[in-house]
Amino acid sequence: MNSAGGYEFEDLSIGQSVAFGRTVSEADIAAFAGVSGDTNPAHLDAEYAAGTRFKQRIAHGMLSAAYISAALGTRLPGPGAVYISQTLKFLRPVHIGATVITRVTVAALDPAKGFVTLACQCSVAGKVVVEGEAVVMVAKREGATA
Amino acid sequence: MNSAGGYEFEDLSIGQSVAFGRTVSEADIAAFAGVSGDTNPAHLDAEYAAGTRFKQRIAHGMLSAAYISAALGTRLPGPGAVYISQTLKFLRPVHIGATVITRVTVAALDPAKGFVTLACQCSVAGKVVVEGEAVVMVAKREGATA
Repeated sequence: MNSAGGYEFEDLSIGQSVAFGRTVSEADIAAFAGVSGDTNPAHLDAEYAAGTRFKQRIAHGMLSAAYISAALGTRLPGPGAVYISQTLKFLRPVHIGATVITRVTVAALDPAKGFVTLACQCSVAGKVVVEGEAVVMVAKREGATA
Repeated sequence: MNSAGGYEFEDLSIGQSVAFGRTVSEADIAAFAGVSGDTNPAHLDAEYAAGTRFKQRIAHGMLSAAYISAALGTRLPGPGAVYISQTLKFLRPVHIGATVITRVTVAALDPAKGFVTLACQCSVAGKVVVEGEAVVMVAKREGATA
């Protein structure tokens, strides 16, 4: 562990995994629209959304992506990790009131670069809504050599 | 244009592009932390951040990604587009007070699937901070055939 409670590279092993849940509220969607500028009516306008393929308002896909960022930045590897890249596939809509379970799992370790690849999955009621892969850079312990 | 002001597939051509700017405030970072749960001290704790490689608090990388979502969901293609996938490379940190210019550009069109690929780039003071590629699905005009 580093001083901020994050994992150091040597602490990580393939298969290590954390999950956390968030229930999406109407206020979360309004807040996300405000901070991002993404005021697409599919997220904010119930009458418009009733006429779309999803039949009701849906959360921003990037809100689920933000949960992935939270899992990486606060839990695994946690503070100190530097975000390198992320892929995202948006597979299903997320409705207001849904509880999104976000799981990140260490999938590969590159000791030469200090890069850690994590499989990322957000699910609602057991169905995957967003999946992707993150790469983060994690520092080695003081004095460690590659 | 569809009824919500979004482009229909036939309206799009390769090279079409929009850009918009947002200046990142301290309040934006606090709001993003609240809505996502990403309370990593690199974003929230100035004293901790002073000891990191970035020397000061940085915005969540996913905040720039949210600006991409905003460009896609409100401007090009705009309302009605369905997010399929996104890749993101986080190239440089974004500091409080930075103005992020987000540009999305139509890069490929797949009429059979209705898929549109857009190159996405967020820049600060002319330097790219985040880049990636989005795929969205855009409806054809009523009665149009593939």
